[in-house]
Amino acid sequence: MPKHVYLFEEGNASMRDLLGGKGAGLAEMTRLGFAVPPGFTITTKVCNAYNKSGRFPPGMWKQVDAALSQVESKGGRRFGDPANPLLVSVRSGAKISMPGMMDTVLNIGLNDSTVEALAQMSNERFAWDTYRRLVSMYGRIVKEIDGRKFEATLDRHKEKSAARKDTDLGPGELKAVVADFKDLYRHEVGEEFPSDVKQQLRESVAAVFRSWNGKRAVDYRTFNKIPHTLGTAANTQMMVFGNMGPDSGTGVAFTRNQVTGAKELYGEYLPNAQGEDVVAGIRTPMKIAELRGSYPEIYADLSRVAERLENHFREAQDIEFTVERGKLWILQTRAAKPPARAAVRIALDMVRERLVTKQEALLRIKPDHVIQLLLPQFDEAAKAEARRAGLFLAKGLNASPGAAMGVVAFDPDEAERIGRDEAKPVILVRLETSPDDVHGILHSKGVLTARGGATSHAAVVTRGLGIPCVAGCEAIQVDYDAAEFRVGDKVVRRGEHLAIDGSTGEVFAGAIRTIAPDFEREAELQTLLGWADEERALQVWANADYPRDAARARKFGAQGIGLDRTEHMFMETDRLPIVQEMILAAPEYRKVKRQRGALASQFEAATSDRRRDLEGRLAELDSRLEDLSRRYLGSLDRIGQMQRDDFVGILREMAGLPVIIRLIDPPLHEFLPRYETLLVQVTKLRIARGDPEAFVRAATAEEDRALLAEARKVGGSDVARGIQALLPRKERLLEAVKLSREANPMLGLRGCRLGIMFPEITRMQVRAIFEAACRLQREGVDVRPEIMIPLVGLAEELRVEREALEAEAKSVMEREGVSVAYKFGTMIEIPRAALVADEIARHAEFFSFGTNDLTQTTMGYSRDDAEPKFLLDYIEEGILPNNPFQTIDRKGVGQLMRMCVQRGRKVRPNLEIGICGEHGGDPASIDLCHEIGLNYVSCSPFRVPVARLAAAHATLRRKMPASEDG
Amino acid sequence: MPKHVYLFEEGNASMRDLLGGKGAGLAEMTRLGFAVPPGFTITTKVCNAYNKSGRFPPGMWKQVDAALSQVESKGGRRFGDPANPLLVSVRSGAKISMPGMMDTVLNIGLNDSTVEALAQMSNERFAWDTYRRLVSMYGRIVKEIDGRKFEATLDRHKEKSAARKDTDLGPGELKAVVADFKDLYRHEVGEEFPSDVKQQLRESVAAVFRSWNGKRAVDYRTFNKIPHTLGTAANTQMMVFGNMGPDSGTGVAFTRNQVTGAKELYGEYLPNAQGEDVVAGIRTPMKIAELRGSYPEIYADLSRVAERLENHFREAQDIEFTVERGKLWILQTRAAKPPARAAVRIALDMVRERLVTKQEALLRIKPDHVIQLLLPQFDEAAKAEARRAGLFLAKGLNASPGAAMGVVAFDPDEAERIGRDEAKPVILVRLETSPDDVHGILHSKGVLTARGGATSHAAVVTRGLGIPCVAGCEAIQVDYDAAEFRVGDKVVRRGEHLAIDGSTGEVFAGAIRTIAPDFEREAELQTLLGWADEERALQVWANADYPRDAARARKFGAQGIGLDRTEHMFMETDRLPIVQEMILAAPEYRKVKRQRGALASQFEAATSDRRRDLEGRLAELDSRLEDLSRRYLGSLDRIGQMQRDDFVGILREMAGLPVIIRLIDPPLHEFLPRYETLLVQVTKLRIARGDPEAFVRAATAEEDRALLAEARKVGGSDVARGIQALLPRKERLLEAVKLSREANPMLGLRGCRLGIMFPEITRMQVRAIFEAACRLQREGVDVRPEIMIPLVGLAEELRVEREALEAEAKSVMEREGVSVAYKFGTMIEIPRAALVADEIARHAEFFSFGTNDLTQTTMGYSRDDAEPKFLLDYIEEGILPNNPFQTIDRKGVGQLMRMCVQRGRKVRPNLEIGICGEHGGDPASIDLCHEIGLNYVSCSPFRVPVARLAAAHATLRRKMPASEDG
Repeated sequence: MPKHVYLFEEGNASMRDLLGGKGAGLAEMTRLGFAVPPGFTITTKVCNAYNKSGRFPPGMWKQVDAALSQVESKGGRRFGDPANPLLVSVRSGAKISMPGMMDTVLNIGLNDSTVEALAQMSNERFAWDTYRRLVSMYGRIVKEIDGRKFEATLDRHKEKSAARKDTDLGPGELKAVVADFKDLYRHEVGEEFPSDVKQQLRESVAAVFRSWNGKRAVDYRTFNKIPHTLGTAANTQMMVFGNMGPDSGTGVAFTRNQVTGAKELYGEYLPNAQGEDVVAGIRTPMKIAELRGSYPEIYADLSRVAERLENHFREAQDIEFTVERGKLWILQTRAAKPPARAAVRIALDMVRERLVTKQEALLRIKPDHVIQLLLPQFDEAAKAEARRAGLFLAKGLNASPGAAMGVVAFDPDEAERIGRDEAKPVILVRLETSPDDVHGILHSKGVLTARGGATSHAAVVTRGLGIPCVAGCEAIQVDYDAAEFRVGDKVVRRGEHLAIDGSTGEVFAGAIRTIAPDFEREAELQTLLGWADEERALQVWANADYPRDAARARKFGAQGIGLDRTEHMFMETDRLPIVQEMILAAPEYRKVKRQRGALASQFEAATSDRRRDLEGRLAELDSRLEDLSRRYLGSLDRIGQMQRDDFVGILREMAGLPVIIRLIDPPLHEFLPRYETLLVQVTKLRIARGDPEAFVRAATAEEDRALLAEARKVGGSDVARGIQALLPRKERLLEAVKLSREANPMLGLRGCRLGIMFPEITRMQVRAIFEAACRLQREGVDVRPEIMIPLVGLAEELRVEREALEAEAKSVMEREGVSVAYKFGTMIEIPRAALVADEIARHAEFFSFGTNDLTQTTMGYSRDDAEPKFLLDYIEEGILPNNPFQTIDRKGVGQLMRMCVQRGRKVRPNLEIGICGEHGGDPASIDLCHEIGLNYVSCSPFRVPVARLAAAHATLRRKMPASEDG
Repeated sequence: MPKHVYLFEEGNASMRDLLGGKGAGLAEMTRLGFAVPPGFTITTKVCNAYNKSGRFPPGMWKQVDAALSQVESKGGRRFGDPANPLLVSVRSGAKISMPGMMDTVLNIGLNDSTVEALAQMSNERFAWDTYRRLVSMYGRIVKEIDGRKFEATLDRHKEKSAARKDTDLGPGELKAVVADFKDLYRHEVGEEFPSDVKQQLRESVAAVFRSWNGKRAVDYRTFNKIPHTLGTAANTQMMVFGNMGPDSGTGVAFTRNQVTGAKELYGEYLPNAQGEDVVAGIRTPMKIAELRGSYPEIYADLSRVAERLENHFREAQDIEFTVERGKLWILQTRAAKPPARAAVRIALDMVRERLVTKQEALLRIKPDHVIQLLLPQFDEAAKAEARRAGLFLAKGLNASPGAAMGVVAFDPDEAERIGRDEAKPVILVRLETSPDDVHGILHSKGVLTARGGATSHAAVVTRGLGIPCVAGCEAIQVDYDAAEFRVGDKVVRRGEHLAIDGSTGEVFAGAIRTIAPDFEREAELQTLLGWADEERALQVWANADYPRDAARARKFGAQGIGLDRTEHMFMETDRLPIVQEMILAAPEYRKVKRQRGALASQFEAATSDRRRDLEGRLAELDSRLEDLSRRYLGSLDRIGQMQRDDFVGILREMAGLPVIIRLIDPPLHEFLPRYETLLVQVTKLRIARGDPEAFVRAATAEEDRALLAEARKVGGSDVARGIQALLPRKERLLEAVKLSREANPMLGLRGCRLGIMFPEITRMQVRAIFEAACRLQREGVDVRPEIMIPLVGLAEELRVEREALEAEAKSVMEREGVSVAYKFGTMIEIPRAALVADEIARHAEFFSFGTNDLTQTTMGYSRDDAEPKFLLDYIEEGILPNNPFQTIDRKGVGQLMRMCVQRGRKVRPNLEIGICGEHGGDPASIDLCHEIGLNYVSCSPFRVPVARLAAAHATLRRKMPASEDG
């Protein structure tokens, strides 16, 4: 007969599949000789069989009976014995922990006779309180009675006795409660509460198994991608009681300090109490350290146990224990999950203590730990001051880490308006959020909700977007109509300042300064990252557009710049007008130049008569070309000089390291005024022209007054003349912007297409790069520029660009009399480029994956639209496992990348390949990059430390598969 | 020593690589014993060596001398012999014909003494005319003297002699011309015209070889993708003269009638004339048939030769011949290129005559032939009437086939405005076109240019776009400033009607009715396509949205409907308002429904006190939901009933054949008014509200008057009240349209994403399909619906949709009591879908490639923007070999398709796979579809016959690689 039931003595830590995590842990501790209350585990296989057929396997209950008598003899009590009763718990426990998602029944074994024996052993109040807990818990869990009905009954008794708390009820009242609970049970279920303790056990086991398929559990597994086929085990264990006198008690202990990480017992202990009393919060527990003076023996026992457990598991432990009449029972131990700072200290200490290797220590530190240590935080002094000033409001769930500050908006539309249009920091405050609020969340600095837990919509969405969030802050009362929320007598209104800390859950009224963390002072983190650097195969580079970003990246350990977006510099206030002049002239220049070329050929072929006709037109075109050339090439020259200075800055900052400079990428209309704005302005000016006075009178809206001011300026304070003069200008601009509009700019005239259509722009950029590089090299600076062409899809595009640009580079170097070593490469951001990577590699010394665009094109998602329109819904409904703009879609985009690497390297084995999309800082994506053999990942400077760790994990995970980090 | 020179006797037809096409043809004819003027060929290898080193291989001229003396002995004349001189031509001839792109020198061997002998043999005028031709041709070709200078000299002599034509010049005058030509030669070259005939020969051969690298030739090869490494041969051949008396003559003969295809000699003959005289057009040649009476012997000789040639080559021949003193010389033969109708007849006849197999006959018919037979044509009667009415204007080059009619525009912007915004047919008339005109070409029905040949910009672009074009119509004088063109004294002004026939090159003033060809009367084509059907592996389906299209497709031989775009039916005038109502209500419905769900959960969990609070809100939401449901679901119901009738129509029409119905695909805002239009209207109404009278006064523009009319209607003819009422409506609409706008709609909320977000829409469609199918099946109609989900990228999308839709289908079938067999499948139009085709195939019974979108996403090109913005430039500059929206990009998109087919069939071996993009009717793309193993191609109904042929070619080309069609 198959073995369905395992005594704790019969199992061990490796049997998680069969016994679940809790069962395997209890077995392991029992095996090691720790004082674990005796018990046994019914396997996960039984759970699956039961849930499939609704029946238990034949012979199983015989095995349970046999195990139970072992427990009885070890515990020295008997199940159902009216003189010396054994009480047991039945707890769920799956292979993968699902805290709070499944059911537990405690105190099984009580009935009208055993309760009396329990009263004898402890006291009457405790015994009857325990009994009423069993009846309600059993009723709720096993018979699915609405828990509020038990609560209402209890409330009635409390009212009658004028009791404020449950604990104010005396033994007599509790007996009455039990009687009423049993009445309620009979009324709801149609039968008596079972006094047969075996029946109690059987039905509790069944209920625990059924809870595997409860809605909460199923949702949790779907969300966390836990297979629904695992099943849960059911652990039956002797109850022990910490409230049996002053030599009893209950507590939680961590083997290391959870705040500092120091090696010392840490936790809380409540003498003469059960776990429930801790939760009820009526008595303040003592610190574990105080045990040393008050209960030296218990402290000594606990210290011994803690050290043995830690040495055994080689990881800081989180231990639940109960002391029953001087005897220390260990109820559970598991790996402690200390916060970031402590986790780093513990990892370092354990390496010093030779408990773990550096590699193991590295795997214990999660990328999230590094993120937490480097997130913006409130300035502690400012926070303390705010507390003193009474600005602390409440504490909610720390749902998405980081500190944020801004003005309050209750309406997502308003949040969007303030955040996007006014570019002011805004905190969105909602009762709870739904997909209809996402457009507001996207433009908020932080989110605060009154309801919802760690898997609520707000929590999931903000974590996904990297926006700080405090969720489920029940203390706040939100009133949408009044546009305010209250905490007690404090009121925060729409538009007022609010500060939230998503790492701690704290909420403050008013503004609190946030500060960037100081990486250089994080010595322990730096040590750890130093070890990471020794392990990782991937280099970590950074994306930086300005010298100051490059400096920061270098400080964080970046080994190069993987993406310098040259056009970002175009946007600066003093440059934009020149850039716009250039852009408006470019298409006209191109057109006239072509016309002139065609006319010149005609002229060549013409008879002398006809030549005379053509000469006039030729002269006219020449004069137009001269004017356009001044506007187009002249502006380009001015921009080129500025760009050269930018490049001097960044190349100097990154001396000795590679700097990949990407040539202009975005569609030109991104640098022009918005079409809609111009359209409205032109419409208004056309009407205003007829009756300027009326327009002046009606101009109360801000945008109208701005337009009027512009007209006044143009007209030398004469409005009518100003409107007359402004209108044709705006009309011309409108026409130009209209010409450059595209239905799908993402798939339009940008990247190398722009460079090929307007070669003068890219030539200007290349000239600026090489002038900068030559100048620095003459100064003795070690410059390593790499020129990157964006959006290549055809090998021929790259060949054409490369030829033109290398000629330009050569000419600059000859002029400057300096030879600069450089590389020439391309972004891979269109599926076709990955598919023909072999052809492209013939013209490229390096590839850099632009995974944002590659994700857009491979999946057909517009980054600008997809998230609020459908993508977040997809994630919520489980159609997509992750947001592919955060973690690379392995199956699709990842597959293309792998193909690309293989094909590129086949042609050019030493091809340098990296990634410069936003995914470069995402640990799961970094793992993929390691797997497919990239040379480096490039991410934002702040993400560099995270990437260094994640890259080491990627190596270690493959080297030490057994140490897989959870 | 390598053999550099081959006598015609030494070669044969298989030696095209070495001897070029012309050389191999002359050799083959010589070998077969035809009377070919004797000669020899210098090989293509010599050409390559000469062009590389500038020198001829050592010993080559010795081989030439040897060959020349063979020619002399065969011809009975000697080269340079002052008594009996042999004249020769040197002609280029590459492996692949490049007509007119390289050089030829004729009449080599004339000098001051041999010219006298020639005068003796023929007549003086002819001899001197031939001599002056040699001097000028030699000067131009060998010495690169500007040809116009010779012309100017000739013109001077003509003026002096008051001669209107060259032929008006007598022998004395021609002698003077020769003298002046030689002076000119000396002046330009700096040396005398060579009297050494060997030198003439040597330099002519060198010039012919050099012309391989002339600009025209290089451009032509680049354009036609002919390798630049082939080189040309140089053919030296004895000159024969057709002007040696009445028993001489020259002509061109086709072995079959080039108009009807009948088996009879066809062509023209000019007695006592040289080829040039035919070109000069002074004498009207006689029809070949007339030879039978006038020159029975020549006719008999020619008939014999024609039959032998045709039997040998098993293909209709195009023969150039000269009769010199009764002897028939064959100068060239090549495969005739008859127009479509004749080609079809010839192919059929040759099969009947057992000259070729059916398969060979099929390969002779090009897809273009089928297209020509099925293109819109002018109604012949209307055309004849137009001619009678004097409306015929001119004849230009038939640059892109098809007849077109529309109003004249000279400006591309205007063409765009008329064609797109006014939706009126427009003909763009330009001197010549450039890339700056493409936006106008795109919206024109036809293009007429005054300048430019078959490879001019206009010709290439229009052929690419399938727009009829007459190019190089030199007779028209275009005056942009006056916005008119003239032909003689006829004037056509902007806005007047014009009709052009791109198949014939004819241009007519006024409107001429165009008619669709009658496929059913094309019996011979039908026979041929029947044979094609026997050969092809691919099925041919059609894309059709309406029953009338389906009927047409079926008539053309479609074996199914591969794409029925259900949403096209949404656009019909009577439906659009209902569709808009539905679309405006949908997002609100979704939102309120979700809110109600959340509130209901809260209510469930709430205490009774709180429940009372919530009840009010719940009731409010219920009432809003009821209203929205009426608007959203109510509209859907009405649309559903209409759709059901549409489906009844198309399924009935296609009884017994599969019909793939695609569920709604485009973004919803495509059904709403344009955002910009609304924005301008709202801006105007806001201003008008303040002073309605002023607005009424100022409303002269058409759009303003329309807006005013709308306001009057709303206000019951009270304008002020109308504006007040209209403004908030327009504002709401503007807001709704704004919400549905997307930065990149191509990558946005459309396809199955729409179906998943608004499941009610797709459920409505599926209901309509199955109600239609059930009703028809009850009537005994054999219906075969296939439901297609667009834009799938994730297997999970398809699973979710399939489950929902199959449930709907099941429920309809149960209600109707009928079970309809159907398939469920998806479009593959996103790269990711192709990459994970194995996963997707688990949920799909068929795939259909949407190659338009797949091209957009794989290459990152927006169909709406790319062509005018950069794509046509790319093609012109050779960066792209083809327009990927016309012919599938094999390397990128094709590779993905191949991958997809393999992966999909691995999971589901009987997976039905087809293509429904516009590429489905493109022969090169059809070839790819055959190669990668698709089941069918689906194209527009008119393309079905073309696809049937192209599919057969795809099979035959692989079965009979030797019969590769050119």
